[in-house]
Amino acid sequence: MTVKQIKVFAPASIANLGPGFDVFGLALNELGDILNIEKSSKKEVKISLSGLSNNIPIDPTKNSAGVVLLNMIKREKLDYGFKVEIKKGIPPGKGLGSSGASAAAAAFACKELLDLQIDNKDLVEIAAQGEAAVAGSAHADNVSPSLFGGFVIVCENYDFIRFDAPEVGLVIVMPDLFYENKTKLARSLLPEKVDLKDAVKNIGYASKMVASISLGDPVLFGRSICDNLIEPHRAKMIPHFKEVKKAALDAGAYGCSIAGGGPSLFAVGNDLLSIGKAMQESFGEISSEIYISKPNNRGAHKL
Amino acid sequence: MTVKQIKVFAPASIANLGPGFDVFGLALNELGDILNIEKSSKKEVKISLSGLSNNIPIDPTKNSAGVVLLNMIKREKLDYGFKVEIKKGIPPGKGLGSSGASAAAAAFACKELLDLQIDNKDLVEIAAQGEAAVAGSAHADNVSPSLFGGFVIVCENYDFIRFDAPEVGLVIVMPDLFYENKTKLARSLLPEKVDLKDAVKNIGYASKMVASISLGDPVLFGRSICDNLIEPHRAKMIPHFKEVKKAALDAGAYGCSIAGGGPSLFAVGNDLLSIGKAMQESFGEISSEIYISKPNNRGAHKL
Repeated sequence: MTVKQIKVFAPASIANLGPGFDVFGLALNELGDILNIEKSSKKEVKISLSGLSNNIPIDPTKNSAGVVLLNMIKREKLDYGFKVEIKKGIPPGKGLGSSGASAAAAAFACKELLDLQIDNKDLVEIAAQGEAAVAGSAHADNVSPSLFGGFVIVCENYDFIRFDAPEVGLVIVMPDLFYENKTKLARSLLPEKVDLKDAVKNIGYASKMVASISLGDPVLFGRSICDNLIEPHRAKMIPHFKEVKKAALDAGAYGCSIAGGGPSLFAVGNDLLSIGKAMQESFGEISSEIYISKPNNRGAHKL
Repeated sequence: MTVKQIKVFAPASIANLGPGFDVFGLALNELGDILNIEKSSKKEVKISLSGLSNNIPIDPTKNSAGVVLLNMIKREKLDYGFKVEIKKGIPPGKGLGSSGASAAAAAFACKELLDLQIDNKDLVEIAAQGEAAVAGSAHADNVSPSLFGGFVIVCENYDFIRFDAPEVGLVIVMPDLFYENKTKLARSLLPEKVDLKDAVKNIGYASKMVASISLGDPVLFGRSICDNLIEPHRAKMIPHFKEVKKAALDAGAYGCSIAGGGPSLFAVGNDLLSIGKAMQESFGEISSEIYISKPNNRGAHKL
């Protein structure tokens, strides 16, 4: 046993980004989880929490990082376990890939700590299965940007295409709303059938968004944030959604939509503080926090 | 009156390209229409046809190039008209943007001949309205690649994003099938509602296709040709569709789908002649022609 301990950071992320439901993910700067993982002689996973850890379970079978570590013990047939300290920088339940970031951090940490030869696709799968234990289904749209940074297109079977994201200014407004089983709830609001014409519009905007990434064009990126498929349904779980979105656009945002499963909204623009404050005001009686960010092109890394 | 006459070429195109219904278009090399346009003192449009001009009307109100020229007379308040010789290189009714290419050639020729200051978006609109007179609705997914070459993402209001296309090898198999009002028929087969999960798959493949263009990756481009929304419905108008597609993939194609409104199929791969012949055989009693092409990054131009 050479290295016994590792400390890693994995950033928050926004999934969907408007038109790319279950397809797009973007890593955020600074906001992130820090995990300190130590090998322990007992073949078990022990979790301790600090930071924004309200409502996060320490039972490793119910914690996204814990599940990753338990799976890793099985996968690598380890005869030892792990002690994990999770310092939550990402508020859970806000649509910012909080459980995904913890899972990504745990997967990345294991790879480094055990010096494993795991390809990127497998690493995404390991992290996604950790997130699934918490979120209900294994999607890679949060864990892959948390692992590798940048803008990610999720393909089938945990395959993905990653691009460096352009210097886009984002403001995220996180309302003080809490939902039990939020990810499941957010999915339950979606219809099975949608209008073909709305699907075609989303295909157009999603294509435009990938083009904006390739061209490094933040304005085009912002103007591609348009979603006719998911947003109208998930908006129902966010009081004042219409007013908040309108306030963002009126304040000069190029685009605005729901971050992942919500209830946070994100907007892209220039004068991010003004946009954020206008959004915050439109939430009326619901208090909220603002977070201003750029994309993160680094992903999970050692500290 | 300085220049009285102009001769132009506009290439064929494939719309949709699998996942991008009404969004993607790709210009093809070589195959194209040649228009010779001459100012004439009489304020009318006179069309003469040669080449693959079967079933193409010479009545200018029913011919896509004719409509463009008639509209141009009105738009520019001209006190003269045009004589047009159209040499059809693109077989009509096969899904290769035949009427779109004639319309694009006419729009481009007018711009050059009259030395007009028209921006690209307006030029697309002018051409699309010409095509609409024939195809029933004004879409830009054929006319914009015919005008500007390359790979095009059509946005709302005739806006578009154009990329140079990578060196992709394409084989197109054009069956001897003829449908009255084919574009309308092809649209009438589509449902109003589709499964959300199929829409999400198309969003993923469309995003992957734009990424492939940005990365210049022909294999990724081919593997992005996947369409769960439109193809299953339009396949009904193409006898032996399933067998032909399977033959393409079995022969090593990376992907295969319907070209535009059909009935041609296109495939992307390396050994294009073998793929094309395998497809041709699977059409059984229906005879067909093969066309092997690369993308055209030049678009409409003077000859």
